[in-house]
Amino acid sequence: MNAPERLDATPSLGKIMLVGIGPGSVEHMTGRARDAIAEADTVIGYVTYIKLVADLLAGKEVIRKSMTEELDRAIEALDRARQGKKVALISSGDAGVYGMAGPTYEVLFQAGWTPDSGVEVEIVPGASALNSCAALVGAPLTHDFCAISLSDLLTPWPVIARRLDAVAYADFVVALYNPKSGRRTRQIVEAQRLFLRHRRADTPVAIVKSAYRRREQIQFTTLEKMCEADIGMLSTVLIGNSSTFVREGRMVTPRGYANKYESSEGGQGFEAREGEKAGRSLSTGLLGWLDGLHAEHAAGADVAELAQRHRLPVDYLCAVLATEESDA
Amino acid sequence: MNAPERLDATPSLGKIMLVGIGPGSVEHMTGRARDAIAEADTVIGYVTYIKLVADLLAGKEVIRKSMTEELDRAIEALDRARQGKKVALISSGDAGVYGMAGPTYEVLFQAGWTPDSGVEVEIVPGASALNSCAALVGAPLTHDFCAISLSDLLTPWPVIARRLDAVAYADFVVALYNPKSGRRTRQIVEAQRLFLRHRRADTPVAIVKSAYRRREQIQFTTLEKMCEADIGMLSTVLIGNSSTFVREGRMVTPRGYANKYESSEGGQGFEAREGEKAGRSLSTGLLGWLDGLHAEHAAGADVAELAQRHRLPVDYLCAVLATEESDA
Repeated sequence: MNAPERLDATPSLGKIMLVGIGPGSVEHMTGRARDAIAEADTVIGYVTYIKLVADLLAGKEVIRKSMTEELDRAIEALDRARQGKKVALISSGDAGVYGMAGPTYEVLFQAGWTPDSGVEVEIVPGASALNSCAALVGAPLTHDFCAISLSDLLTPWPVIARRLDAVAYADFVVALYNPKSGRRTRQIVEAQRLFLRHRRADTPVAIVKSAYRRREQIQFTTLEKMCEADIGMLSTVLIGNSSTFVREGRMVTPRGYANKYESSEGGQGFEAREGEKAGRSLSTGLLGWLDGLHAEHAAGADVAELAQRHRLPVDYLCAVLATEESDA
Repeated sequence: MNAPERLDATPSLGKIMLVGIGPGSVEHMTGRARDAIAEADTVIGYVTYIKLVADLLAGKEVIRKSMTEELDRAIEALDRARQGKKVALISSGDAGVYGMAGPTYEVLFQAGWTPDSGVEVEIVPGASALNSCAALVGAPLTHDFCAISLSDLLTPWPVIARRLDAVAYADFVVALYNPKSGRRTRQIVEAQRLFLRHRRADTPVAIVKSAYRRREQIQFTTLEKMCEADIGMLSTVLIGNSSTFVREGRMVTPRGYANKYESSEGGQGFEAREGEKAGRSLSTGLLGWLDGLHAEHAAGADVAELAQRHRLPVDYLCAVLATEESDA
């Protein structure tokens, strides 16, 4: 078998690796992220992220792009991969979280890419900004949380505002990405306004800039005062839920809402409260709650009144009550 | 200076390291996570996670705990750290996301811990399940997302239901943690019911079990059919937003809602649409939206009608309209 035939049989395969490098310090990068950059012929990224991995780039083609050239980065990556190159497209944090994975697939599909088309795609996960910032401030993400970008470059404001309102109401811990830039200064003020409709003014807020990087800065403040804090392009804003507290310089969200366990002997032991069992659903968990609801309804309680009391939609309670009694 | 004096001056310091090991394969662990385990005298964790780092444990005290013994794990860690040991408490994913960081701080505060009390605390961030699962299925987290645990062991069902309802309405991509267990089988059915009130039946859903581990399994389904899928304790359920699509076996959420760019020449270039500028806020971004709102209001539009059209609270629109006209 001669060389040209072999080339025909196994056409040179290119690869695009979407690499999340974590917060930016080398020690918080995964082994796979390092290996992916090492394997690459070409490394493409926003100029700041390229600097963060400067010591891994010897002998590689390096393409530095500005912040807004996301689609161009993906197009260049596809171009090189079609030539049989291995390309690492780097994102800070996780490549999937507001990162390059989405725009890259958009460009690939636009160009008619399929998994068999000779360009392999690998996404290398990493710790996103919310994970890194949380680690530095304590344990704010112990309960349900969400991430909202305040950038209105691609998302209409009513969509963003609706989300802020919904999660403020439903008591999520919230990480705000892209909270403020030179041009976008009022978004954070509007976010605060929407939150203050549902949350206490003294709700803990932590603002982390450049987590695990040289100019790292951590500020603790409150919902009421957060707009006075130093917030910029490299900041992530963490807003606690109604149970989040700050103590000894740590922002902590408790695991649940139930205070299921009470401590005995000065923290040396924890016992489940009366009526609750360790490792089992709460008495107000789904099945217990359903039983109570059915009983109240059978006793003549009004569904609209029950819905209001539980702060849930009337039609959801109707649907639940129409389902046969649980066999818990 | 003699030995006892030196001991008094620098009392032996213990340390608790809360280590997120990522999805579970060694290559997706960060350098700092590996180093923290290497530094530790004692490694404590849920038995499954201990197995995932088995090759790093030679010569260490290893304490294996069951799933429900979270507080016990933290108490044992504090106990060893008070004896001057370095303790690694390991969590899969990120130690802060439904992980050991929260319960550990709860136990520390209960015991009167302060940063000066001779026990240092370090949290080592890692890729959480949502990052790892997203990387395996495509790019579902390119836009705003949230994490909700369906476990009602510590959270009353109405709190969980309210959150499901809020984020289904506000069109978040959602990662469901702890979706189902042997005992908890109806929570996922109720989650589906709440979502179907707001989202299309064919909304893409991906279910990932044991991401990056030996028995990894990826299923694509839809909101309507997700309860028929194989879902267990080691599964994460990813529900797309209204724009998420599946193509060529990849689940992708577009970056924005605006279709700001249109492609030209078969994906070789992207141009901003008429009325929009690359790198600038959308015409429906905050300032553009505010200008339009003020104009409509000045022309006599009813605030309640405007609120309904924009699906935002009336009092928010009133507050915004009361603020002086933006100078955009």
